Amino acid sequence: MDVKEENVTDKLYLEDLQVGQTFSSAAEEMTEAEILAFAEKFDPQPFHLDHEVAKATLFGGLAASGWHTAAFTMRLNVTSGPKFAGGIVGGGGEISWPMPTRPGDVLHVESEVLEVMPSRSKPDRGMVVLLSNTVNQDGKIVQVSKMKLVVPRRVS
Amino acid sequence: MDVKEENVTDKLYLEDLQVGQTFSSAAEEMTEAEILAFAEKFDPQPFHLDHEVAKATLFGGLAASGWHTAAFTMRLNVTSGPKFAGGIVGGGGEISWPMPTRPGDVLHVESEVLEVMPSRSKPDRGMVVLLSNTVNQDGKIVQVSKMKLVVPRRVS
Repeated sequence: MDVKEENVTDKLYLEDLQVGQTFSSAAEEMTEAEILAFAEKFDPQPFHLDHEVAKATLFGGLAASGWHTAAFTMRLNVTSGPKFAGGIVGGGGEISWPMPTRPGDVLHVESEVLEVMPSRSKPDRGMVVLLSNTVNQDGKIVQVSKMKLVVPRRVS
Repeated sequence: MDVKEENVTDKLYLEDLQVGQTFSSAAEEMTEAEILAFAEKFDPQPFHLDHEVAKATLFGGLAASGWHTAAFTMRLNVTSGPKFAGGIVGGGGEISWPMPTRPGDVLHVESEVLEVMPSRSKPDRGMVVLLSNTVNQDGKIVQVSKMKLVVPRRVS
């Protein structure tokens, strides 16, 4: 068996998934430098860019852009989350940020399969709804997402 | 009137907003280099990183990470979208990607106010639901988001 085949057998297909199945990612720190760099590029608002100005805003201090937390969560799921065959391919879903991500927060992602639905029209795939909670070093949830993912079925 | 005061009067408070109000952002190109850089950092999957490999995937060719489209949309809204007092502060909502963003796509954002709700408990603010469609150069929608935003009320 070559490496490619080994990898394939390690992957999760629709048939390998069931409601309630859970996955936990590695933990990574979101540094202040990263928060500032992301905000400068994608979300240049004072509460993501400047400590002093941020104090007087709703955030009460420097906070990461929610889209940075979302992208960071994606990285954790892709690099150390569920190993779906075909990768993590999302069509959309819900996302919320119950509290801000702060400089130095160490985040990991706890995911759970909420739904597994074979496609009616396409026998080679199905849809999975994956809940992913992004959790900081204090056990607080900074992001909740429920995303619909396309997952391949095994060729029968 | 100093600059700060002038800026304040230009901003939109909850009282300035009504259901059906629309906003259109500037248009910006998403380059292939940007797509690759974002994917390497946040979404390192083959269909976001490699033309040839991407052809054999669901995407049929290189595509931007959905989270890149989301972050790009945020930049367009922050830099040339609705000028809400207090900035664009989102608590969460729905997001979907009806089709992928491709290298060289020129995107702009068309937004519409769907709901305006004064807070019952906090007289200084309210909630706005903003629909933002991210549209490419062919008029196709690559992202739909409906986000709940916190918007300040004028001090009475």
